[in-house]
Amino acid sequence: MKIGFVGLGIMGRPMALNLKNGGHDLLVPERASLTAEIRAAATVLADATAVAAGSDVVILMVPDTGDVERALFGAGGVAAGLKNGSLVIDMSSISPVATKEFAKKINALGCDYVDAPVSGGEVGAKAASLTIMVGGPDAAFARAKPLFDLMGKNITHIGAENGTGQTCKVANQIIVALNIQAAAEALVFAARAGADPAKVREALMGGFASSRVLEVHAERMIKGTFNPGFRIRLHQKDLNLALTAARELGLSLPNTAIAQQMFTSVAAHGGADLDHSALVKAIEILGDFSLQDKT
Amino acid sequence: MKIGFVGLGIMGRPMALNLKNGGHDLLVPERASLTAEIRAAATVLADATAVAAGSDVVILMVPDTGDVERALFGAGGVAAGLKNGSLVIDMSSISPVATKEFAKKINALGCDYVDAPVSGGEVGAKAASLTIMVGGPDAAFARAKPLFDLMGKNITHIGAENGTGQTCKVANQIIVALNIQAAAEALVFAARAGADPAKVREALMGGFASSRVLEVHAERMIKGTFNPGFRIRLHQKDLNLALTAARELGLSLPNTAIAQQMFTSVAAHGGADLDHSALVKAIEILGDFSLQDKT
Repeated sequence: MKIGFVGLGIMGRPMALNLKNGGHDLLVPERASLTAEIRAAATVLADATAVAAGSDVVILMVPDTGDVERALFGAGGVAAGLKNGSLVIDMSSISPVATKEFAKKINALGCDYVDAPVSGGEVGAKAASLTIMVGGPDAAFARAKPLFDLMGKNITHIGAENGTGQTCKVANQIIVALNIQAAAEALVFAARAGADPAKVREALMGGFASSRVLEVHAERMIKGTFNPGFRIRLHQKDLNLALTAARELGLSLPNTAIAQQMFTSVAAHGGADLDHSALVKAIEILGDFSLQDKT
Repeated sequence: MKIGFVGLGIMGRPMALNLKNGGHDLLVPERASLTAEIRAAATVLADATAVAAGSDVVILMVPDTGDVERALFGAGGVAAGLKNGSLVIDMSSISPVATKEFAKKINALGCDYVDAPVSGGEVGAKAASLTIMVGGPDAAFARAKPLFDLMGKNITHIGAENGTGQTCKVANQIIVALNIQAAAEALVFAARAGADPAKVREALMGGFASSRVLEVHAERMIKGTFNPGFRIRLHQKDLNLALTAARELGLSLPNTAIAQQMFTSVAAHGGADLDHSALVKAIEILGDFSLQDKT
């Protein structure tokens, strides 16, 4: 199958190469930043319009809502080149609300649209073990499924409505942020009260407090090593999606709002590019006490 | 060994019976509420003073800080009967700060003290699979360890200072409450945005958002079945311990404080005796939207 791929960054590169290794032809738009490996694996065309014109499926993997909008509908964008009956798969993490609009516009061109954001990071992208959360009609999902199988493992069709994949990703980012804050408040409390946070984490791992965040992120907090991983800057973007959509929906998400403020505090202290487990620094700053003092 | 056991409620009964089945002699103070099974298994004495006088080890399993204080130092209490060299083990979940005082007073009588709160609930108590978090000197922990092995599985000596076991339990309750709120905010958001919360939970189970709470409590939220389990009333008590101690320690725990307010809201709507997963009702009330509308 001829697959156009727009957005060949840290995530997009290994995802595109896994499709190529699965036997598909890659078409990509010219960018100064294209790596030699991608240039060797793909046909490089002038712009996304030309890519769309030559492809059966176009996949997007770009940073934010505005980037998807420009890639689809901007000058030299995908929409201008799409053949009738093509499939657009947006694997970026963006606004569920904007996704519905984008899907409508693409549908109006006689094309299918699925939103399919991922989690699992660079490691999951390379290992083709991404979690993929998919929104879109059954038939469109069925078309995309063999491609998802080349890029991920835990693939869930959340709903037939576009945007439900993005909604699921936002829910994921809410839980991860709040589980990080849970671990941060608990460990700072324990250390300040005179207990060894490493022992506390160890004791809690088997019980109801156990989580992937307690396993992975709490260990980073205890060691004080915050090289990313997933940057605070990006998690701020995702919580902004959550809080903006929640406001539109008339929902109040008090702990999500607080977690966003904690990220803002860490960013204010120069930590926007640290791993998101560095949220613990905001709790430390509030209490004028460092977890490292204890461990 | 002769073991005095004070507090033979839902948790204390199976714990005491597991000690009896392990070959120890049980001594308990007379209470109208003693079950026939406990009366058959134990020697019933007039009060806790008599129990302490006849025992090598005295175990407490009562609801709150004030109950421990009365059981130890009130009229007919443990302290008045303790033999020099006895060991007191408090397995209740109470204030880490008060625990330090209680331990000092017991030590002054020539006795050892360990604080050893548990998690795992009635199920864990019956199956002798409790998680036990222990604070106290190495020698006292070594004395208590064979008894813990008859009641639990995941036994961690948190620190040599009394109170560190209680501190660990408080940390556990902080994480469980905040992970519950994380799941609640994420699922209500997802459902309100038009996604099926059961599908969302399923998609998130394999990734960084996964936790025991997402497994167990989120399922209760989706089904809307809130029979306890662990009651909101008791989790309120535990978060009160956290917030009171945090204030004394000069720590700010913003999401713990919010979670406590959410529990208070559910209690205000008549839910104090529901399972703590019913915290989701507070998020539903705030947004005037029910998870059940969607599922």
